[in-house]
Amino acid sequence: MEARKRRYALLTDGYLADRHAKTAHGMLRYAQDDVVAIVDARFAGCPLLDVLPALQQSKTAARHRDVTIVPSVADALRFSPTSLLVGVATAGGVLPPHFRAHILEAIDAGLEIVSGLHEFLADDPELVRRAQRSGASLWDVRRPPATIPLFSGAAYDVPQIVVLAVGSDCAVGKKSTMIELAAAARAAGDRAEFIATGQTGIMISGKGIVVDRVISDFVSGAAEQLVLGVEPGAQYALVEGQGSIVHPAYAAVTLGLLYGCAPDMLVLCHQAGRTTVEDFDIRVPSLSVLRETYEALLAPIKPAACVAVALNTDSLSDDQARACIAETKAEMALPADDVVRFGAERLWKAIRDAGRDLTKSAPRTQAAGLSSKAR
Amino acid sequence: MEARKRRYALLTDGYLADRHAKTAHGMLRYAQDDVVAIVDARFAGCPLLDVLPALQQSKTAARHRDVTIVPSVADALRFSPTSLLVGVATAGGVLPPHFRAHILEAIDAGLEIVSGLHEFLADDPELVRRAQRSGASLWDVRRPPATIPLFSGAAYDVPQIVVLAVGSDCAVGKKSTMIELAAAARAAGDRAEFIATGQTGIMISGKGIVVDRVISDFVSGAAEQLVLGVEPGAQYALVEGQGSIVHPAYAAVTLGLLYGCAPDMLVLCHQAGRTTVEDFDIRVPSLSVLRETYEALLAPIKPAACVAVALNTDSLSDDQARACIAETKAEMALPADDVVRFGAERLWKAIRDAGRDLTKSAPRTQAAGLSSKAR
Repeated sequence: MEARKRRYALLTDGYLADRHAKTAHGMLRYAQDDVVAIVDARFAGCPLLDVLPALQQSKTAARHRDVTIVPSVADALRFSPTSLLVGVATAGGVLPPHFRAHILEAIDAGLEIVSGLHEFLADDPELVRRAQRSGASLWDVRRPPATIPLFSGAAYDVPQIVVLAVGSDCAVGKKSTMIELAAAARAAGDRAEFIATGQTGIMISGKGIVVDRVISDFVSGAAEQLVLGVEPGAQYALVEGQGSIVHPAYAAVTLGLLYGCAPDMLVLCHQAGRTTVEDFDIRVPSLSVLRETYEALLAPIKPAACVAVALNTDSLSDDQARACIAETKAEMALPADDVVRFGAERLWKAIRDAGRDLTKSAPRTQAAGLSSKAR
Repeated sequence: MEARKRRYALLTDGYLADRHAKTAHGMLRYAQDDVVAIVDARFAGCPLLDVLPALQQSKTAARHRDVTIVPSVADALRFSPTSLLVGVATAGGVLPPHFRAHILEAIDAGLEIVSGLHEFLADDPELVRRAQRSGASLWDVRRPPATIPLFSGAAYDVPQIVVLAVGSDCAVGKKSTMIELAAAARAAGDRAEFIATGQTGIMISGKGIVVDRVISDFVSGAAEQLVLGVEPGAQYALVEGQGSIVHPAYAAVTLGLLYGCAPDMLVLCHQAGRTTVEDFDIRVPSLSVLRETYEALLAPIKPAACVAVALNTDSLSDDQARACIAETKAEMALPADDVVRFGAERLWKAIRDAGRDLTKSAPRTQAAGLSSKAR
């Protein structure tokens, strides 16, 4: 399966138009392998662009605009998929119960099952038994490597310029921003690698660690391993961000990633119009306060500045989006854009210019010979 | 084993005087059960107070000052222990290789083995086999509960006043401070419960969750469960802190705990004279900056103020310690003390006074009916 390209059927049954289907949306936009069908009885037969008009926005996403939506796995088989991908991210990473029958049907048809949920396919005895019978394989994208070292400080010495996406909330566009920036970098002749830190990013790029699944003591260590593993020829490591420093449930992941990947600069991501943190009655601070918070946390450890603002203007008209971007530029005195909607060339140029002014700082830290964890 | 009191032999072989033996030190100071021997060939025969003069400081710690140090498990058996407790915390939570023979000897003698390391006893086939043969049990204190929910916001509504220890670094006295404060509260007739969040705290108090072992996505959820589980009759929940917001390896745990336990007030803990973060060439910010950082992070979510400073003055003379405390009081305009050395009465009074001024805030957050995690 690793050698040849995958042909994905995405399983979203009932959720395709919903933000829960973020995994499917990410694959439709950016998957390097092919997406050949979507299994969703609720939207079966509808043109994909009617269900997800936002797919029109990204030039990068052009490849998967015409994927057929079918009601069942049996119907999807007509498109010769190699793999059924669980296309949703749910609270707590639990499999929606009605997905089970679809998955069993795909297993029996010999398809690989790909899942980014917390609940692992390979921990489910029935799925494992049926997969053994049919020869289907199970890929739990979220399962971290067996051993992850503690953070050592080695990340401070990587030769690449490390750029991290930080944000105002979950699901504001941190992953899409970094993928679009990586594409713009390549188009400009720069060698930039997208570093996936979440399940969809890994499905898209084929490598990475789902940092929110790592034991909390090792989350900075996992982020460090990711930047240490950047392809040596790359000049830039563009790291997918996670969560938000003001998210009461997920900020631990955000901070572990912020410290662990030791960024040289930050891109601040925000969804225009989002005023409260998802699921919580907590106001999102202003972009200026968010920028200050991220920069202030890094200051005593390894200073890094926010060099651009990436806005997600999905909910706005073109004119409104342009006005919002102009306002943000003025307010923050930083380059700002919606890189999905208007292209990432301008923000990439800003990052490259900021990188030119940057001397990679001398190692600020040294792992002790016998590092201790006396706590 | 749960019903009767344990009689502990502490295994520190070679490390007793070292900060790595923090687990043993915590047990000697505060264990509710008995400590009957210490297995450490390097210090065998030495009076315990010669090896650990700091044990003299705490009134609370009086009970275990005369424990005998022996060279081997065989010698420890003379004191009729029920349990051998691995008394060290190492980098990455790995068992020092030379501890293995001691553990096997204790297993063969039928002792319970208690460990707070990341490396679980029960995942080691040889230890499990030998324990099955002898009937010995294995307690991995660090193993988290099988299921921990995501943070929901329910912690904002607990009736107790939640006090969290935060600090400038690892191993500065966050656990000891909260245990001493809980003892002072009881002495003053107040109903306060110590909430353990680390392995030693759990060994001492008999309950808790080792939050640094929890998957990072669930660390705030674990902290929330701890405060939701406080004994209903308690007026105060005194939560053991973890790590430091400026620690590049462990700050994720610190922040998850900070947001998850939803504190009403903070106690800032610091070791006098510590200027750099352990193992890293990173300057510890001033206490004022640390206080601002913790308070600023909580401000948009659930504001809480730092109400006292707890200093660890181990390295200072009595006069120096008093001067340092006076300086800190003046600099921070907050009550300050070394609660281990000089007693916790004064800081407890400060917390109680601050609690009197505090109206438990209305719920700031509400878990949505179908909470989503679309990321």
